[in-house]
Formats: sequence, structure tokens, C-alpha cells
Amino acid sequence: MVESNHPDEQTQSERFQRGWQRLKEVDGKAGEQVVESLQAIAPDLARYVVEFPFGDIYMRPGLDLKSRQIATVAALTALGTAQPQLKIHLRAALNVGCTQEELVEVVMQMAVYAGFPAALNGMAVLKEVLAESSLG
Amino acid sequence: MVESNHPDEQTQSERFQRGWQRLKEVDGKAGEQVVESLQAIAPDLARYVVEFPFGDIYMRPGLDLKSRQIATVAALTALGTAQPQLKIHLRAALNVGCTQEELVEVVMQMAVYAGFPAALNGMAVLKEVLAESSLG
Amino acid sequence: MVESNHPDEQTQSERFQRGWQRLKEVDGKAGEQVVESLQAIAPDLARYVVEFPFGDIYMRPGLDLKSRQIATVAALTALGTAQPQLKIHLRAALNVGCTQEELVEVVMQMAVYAGFPAALNGMAVLKEVLAESSLG
Amino acid sequence: MVESNHPDEQTQSERFQRGWQRLKEVDGKAGEQVVESLQAIAPDLARYVVEFPFGDIYMRPGLDLKSRQIATVAALTALGTAQPQLKIHLRAALNVGCTQEELVEVVMQMAVYAGFPAALNGMAVLKEVLAESSLG
Amino acid sequence: MVESNHPDEQTQSERFQRGWQRLKEVDGKAGEQVVESLQAIAPDLARYVVEFPFGDIYMRPGLDLKSRQIATVAALTALGTAQPQLKIHLRAALNVGCTQEELVEVVMQMAVYAGFPAALNGMAVLKEVLAESSLG
Amino acid sequence: MVESNHPDEQTQSERFQRGWQRLKEVDGKAGEQVVESLQAIAPDLARYVVEFPFGDIYMRPGLDLKSRQIATVAALTALGTAQPQLKIHLRAALNVGCTQEELVEVVMQMAVYAGFPAALNGMAVLKEVLAESSLG
Repeated sequence: MVESNHPDEQTQSERFQRGWQRLKEVDGKAGEQVVESLQAIAPDLARYVVEFPFGDIYMRPGLDLKSRQIATVAALTALGTAQPQLKIHLRAALNVGCTQEELVEVVMQMAVYAGFPAALNGMAVLKEVLAESSLG
Repeated sequence: MVESNHPDEQTQSERFQRGWQRLKEVDGKAGEQVVESLQAIAPDLARYVVEFPFGDIYMRPGLDLKSRQIATVAALTALGTAQPQLKIHLRAALNVGCTQEELVEVVMQMAVYAGFPAALNGMAVLKEVLAESSLG
Repeated sequence: MVESNHPDEQTQSERFQRGWQRLKEVDGKAGEQVVESLQAIAPDLARYVVEFPFGDIYMRPGLDLKSRQIATVAALTALGTAQPQLKIHLRAALNVGCTQEELVEVVMQMAVYAGFPAALNGMAVLKEVLAESSLG
Repeated sequence: MVESNHPDEQTQSERFQRGWQRLKEVDGKAGEQVVESLQAIAPDLARYVVEFPFGDIYMRPGLDLKSRQIATVAALTALGTAQPQLKIHLRAALNVGCTQEELVEVVMQMAVYAGFPAALNGMAVLKEVLAESSLG
Repeated sequence: MVESNHPDEQTQSERFQRGWQRLKEVDGKAGEQVVESLQAIAPDLARYVVEFPFGDIYMRPGLDLKSRQIATVAALTALGTAQPQLKIHLRAALNVGCTQEELVEVVMQMAVYAGFPAALNGMAVLKEVLAESSLG
Repeated sequence: MVESNHPDEQTQSERFQRGWQRLKEVDGKAGEQVVESLQAIAPDLARYVVEFPFGDIYMRPGLDLKSRQIATVAALTALGTAQPQLKIHLRAALNVGCTQEELVEVVMQMAVYAGFPAALNGMAVLKEVLAESSLG
């Protein structure tokens, strides 16, 4: 049989709290708004967003938060179907220490792997994010 | 602040056990093998597969298991990037009561939404699954 | 040689009429508008939409209309490239008897198979559809 | 009301015969095999393949067959999820008069729009097709 | 060792000039605007757009410009993630001699390979392009 | 007018040599084989692979090579259509200093953004790469 190999006997609500702190730290206001906008229609999806990506994945050692954001920005730029999430994660990437130059490089590099339209559309989102953060 | 809205104070290992039972019930041997094949390289991904899709999603009321498999088969056929998972879920669909005819219809319908190649490649996977299950 | 195996000697315009009734029944006004908006630029594409998805596929026995809409909603949520069509099919799903809860479940489940952004963006479309139908 | 605008009162089996001739002309043996391989599991999908892509689309005036194959090869290379169909359509493209050089150009150009992996994987399929046709 | 097999000892800025002329010829004003909009955020991506797609690919013999636009329109319609680029290339296609009817056919054909939603969304973009060009 | 803003008057064959060195450094033997396998069918695509991704993108300052490989591995895992290229870039990532643990984390994280099947199929490729490198 497969063992649970769980580090601890944490309860689900402890996992939620941990995820919620991490979400606020990484995604800031925009992440909170995603969670809140789901409360009326699908509160459990809101909870899963907190628990799995943030309470599980972004709490893991083994890869620093900056590299995690680089991975996410690359994937969302390449997929080209997740502009709202790309926007949040470009901001998150700036929050955890990526520079503007690094983000330009990640998005630009996607021209190689997903084509020029993916890179151009990703760059347009980055442009918005930088314009908004220079106003803030 | 957002509340955890958790039904109970279940621990993570209880959630894992629940998911593991559901996975065996839905996916059978093939699901167990996926989990086991991950033990050496990424045991935590194995654990997440058990906990999130099976311990969380497939335990939910609100949609019967048969409709859940129809949704999964449709999505994996349309995406066209997940043939090994489509194979497992076609078997799972038969396990939870879908008929061969219903699965032919779901896969065929994807010609409308994802194009004929997606439907044809999905049908080839269904053909394999049916050939194997008639041998078993 | 391959036989046509056609159920009857139906003419093409009989097939069109059959599809047009089914389209109105399933997709309602929104479906009619899609067809009408194509009349000036590509009337034959409008005709094919009526004939193939509705006159052929949605007329088939072997899978009930509710399951067909679950399959379509799942696929369009997972693909993430067809928000206008997802909107129409979420309404269609309500028309043929899916409950709000069932649609929340189908869209949420796509987080497992196509990632959280696909599920979140699908949920945003469902939210719009429900807001509009509560006004109607 | 929307009119059927059908050119004639062709029956469905006449449409099938027309599609079957066109399929044999364009796709040759490989296309026939696709249709035959579906007879046992999903004969109606086989019929739709003959009727809609071949009986309807490839019979249309307004775009020559060579341009139609260029469009199809480009799309299938860019999607990257339909290697068996790309193989058939590269052969079909040669059948209707595309040169090897033209096909190399179409596949290569996809590096710009879908990324280098899509173009490289498409080129590998073209290499197989050319190797097989030089043996024939 | 692999040889450079370069036709000439052209410098990079000669390649850029060549690409810039071709971009203006094919994409017109809209293409220039894409390049200019990138100057502040990612001037090197602007440069690569000029150099690789236009200075390299669209300068190649072996496939006429009209066929190149057919390939691009087909791919972007099928991918469904690049509406701004599809718009530019539909205009480019008209610029290099494609007729409205041919473009309707290419976009419509994508229903077969990428599903009806892809074709319908592509047709909506073509409709916009034709409306704008009839005003111009 | 848009200026070329080129750092130098490097010739195309200098750019090729620079890219070739970088390709051998990053991708090793596997990268060389890709280039060589294209010599007979599409030597110019081979040349573009050397020049644009390696001679241009991977030579850029602004993002370290390790972060570039993390971005590429994330994107290719998420897309799910480029297994041969994912294999090469997982090896490349190890070559430029990523640890096995870091690559497991990047691939696993894609479950959040592209779904569990994408992560599972990416992990299967990583497993192959690690098995081969432990044999070497």
C-alpha cells in the first residue's frame, strides 16, 4: 500500500491558514480579490486555490519563490489562455524580487517555445502591470 | 477576512486515505500504478494526485461520478495532450457505469468543439481500452 | 468499399430544418444570433453550424442532452480559447436541465485537468451567465 | 427565419458519395484506412469525416485544393496535437501538387507563430513522409 | 562540424533593414505599430520581430507571400490564442492579394481541424477587418 | 523610423558561430543531433535554431542560464506538445546547474497552471532523463 508520507498531522484548516498567508505575501491584493470574487459562486474553488497552490505548492522548499514565479510567468505566457492570471503573477514576480529586466527576458524567451504571438501578448500584459505599478 | 469554511477538522492523512479509496474505486489498478510510479521521483506529486483530484474533487456531492467522468473524458479528448490520462479515464468511465455507446458519443462530439483530429485520436484510445477490456 | 450506412434518404434541407429546431431548443436566442451574425460574411458556415453540430450530433440517441452539455462545458472550459461559446453552452446547459450546482462542479473539476486558470476563467463566465439569467 | 440556402436538394447519401470520391482523391490510401479503422467502433464518425470535411469543405470552390492543404498543414503543425493527421495531410499536399520545398517552408514558418518545437516536430513528420514516398 | 551555410556575409543591421521593408510591405501600418509599441519595454523583441519573421522567413523564396499568409491565418485561427496577430495577418493577407472569399474559406476550414469555436472566433475577427477596410 | 539599435555590426556567420558554441554548452550532444538531423531536409531551420534561440536569446544578459532553463522547462511541460524538446531542456537544465530537486519542483508546479496530466507527463520525461544520466 501507498503511505501518506505526510510531514505532520496538520488539519485542513491549518493548511488553509498557511496558504492564505502565503497567498497574501505572494499575490497581494489581487490574489485576495480572486478569492473573494469566488465566495458567492464557488466558495470551495476559492478554498482550493488557497490550499493547493499556496498552502501546498508555494510552501514547498526545494525551489525559491523567485524561480517559482519565473516558471509560472513562462508557462502562462506560453499557454496564452490565462491573461488575468498572468497579470497577477507578473505582479507577484515583482513582489518576490524579480526585476523588470528579468521578466522582459522570460516573456521574450517564450517567442522561441510558443511563438511570437505568445511573447507579444505576454509583453502587452507586462506593459500594463509596469504602468500600474509606476502609478501606485 | 476569508474564512476557511471547512466542513470538518479532518487531518491531512485522513484526507489522503479518503482519496486513496476513491482512486482505487474509480481508476482501479491503472490509477494505483500512476501513484506507485511516482514514488521514487516525486512522492509528493503522487500524494497530491490522491489528495486533490480524488480526496477533494471526486468526493464532492453535487455531480454524480458518471457525469464527472463524462466531463473528464470530454476535456482530455479536446486537449489532445493527455493520451495516457485519457486511457485511464475511459476505463474509469466504464467502471462507474458509462456504456461504450455513451463514450463513443462523448468522444465523437469533440469533433465539433476541438476538431476532427482530436475526436479521431480520442477514438483510437477508446478502441484500445475496449480491446483490452474485452480480453480481461 | 465503405457504405454510406445512412438511416434514411433525408435531403440536406430536411437536415437543416431538423438542426435549426434543435439549435433553438438547446441554445435559444444566443444560438440564433450566432447563426444570424454569420449571414453576411459566411452564410455557409452558419449553415454548417446548424447542420453538423445540431442536425447531426445533438440529434443522436446514445447520450442525453444534459450529458452532452456537460461534455461541451468541460471541453470549452479546459481549452480556454472559446469564451463566447462557453457562455452560450452554459446557458444551453441550464436550458436542458443542468443545475447551477452541477455546472459549478464541472467547471471546478477542470482545475484538475487543465489547471486552475482554466477553471477560474470558466467560473467567471458562469458567474456572468447566472447574473444575466437572474435578471431575465 | 434563417433560410437553408442549400444549392440543391441533394440527399445525404449523394453527399456521402461525393465526399468519398474527394477523400480518395486527396488523402489516398491513408484516408481510406482512417475511415475503415472506425467502422467497428464508430461508423458514424467515419461517415461524418467523409461528409463534412470532404463532402462539404473540400468540395467548395473559392479556394484551390493546394491552398487548402497549405492551410491544413500549417494548422496541424501549429497545434502539435495531431501528428497522425499531419502525416496524412502532408501526403495529401504532395498529392494535390505542393512541392517538397513548399511544405518545408510552411512547416518552418510555424516556428514564428507556434514556436520552434512545433516546427521541429512538424519537420520530423515531413521527413518520415518524404522517406516513405521515396520508397514507394 | 555544422557549417553556417550562409548565403552572404550580411551584417545584422542589413538584415534588420531588409526585414523592416518587408514588414511595412506585408503588414502595413498595423505592423509598424506593433514594433513601435515595444520600443519602451522590450526594444530587442521589436528588433527580433523585424529580423526573424520578416528579415528571414518572409524573405525566403520557395513559397509565395499569398500562400505564406494563408498558412499564418490558418495557424492563428486554429490556435485561438492570438486574436491581435490574426487581425494583422488577415489585413496582411488582403495586402498581398488574398481575396475576401479565400480568407472566408481558410477560416471556415479550421472548423474541421480545430473545432467550430475556433472558426467562429476567427470569422468574427475577419468580419472586423473587412468592416474597417471598407471604411478606410 | 525605427532604428536597428544593434550592438555591433556583427555578420550573420559570426552570430551563427556564437549560437553554435552556446548550443553545445547548453544542450550538449542532444542539441547537436537536432541540428544535424535537419541538415538533409531543412538546413535553414537548423541554422535558425542555432542563430535565434542560441545566438540571440541564450546569449542575452539580464537572466541567468539556470533561470532560462527553468522558464523553458515550465513552458514545455505546460504546453504538453513538445516532449522531445522537454527532454533536451531537462538535460540542459542539469547541465547549467539546476538540481534534480529543483526540476521536480518546476514540473510539479505545472499541475497548478496546466493541470495534473501536464505535470504527470512532464514528470515521466524527467524520470527518463534522470535514468539515462545515472547510466552515463
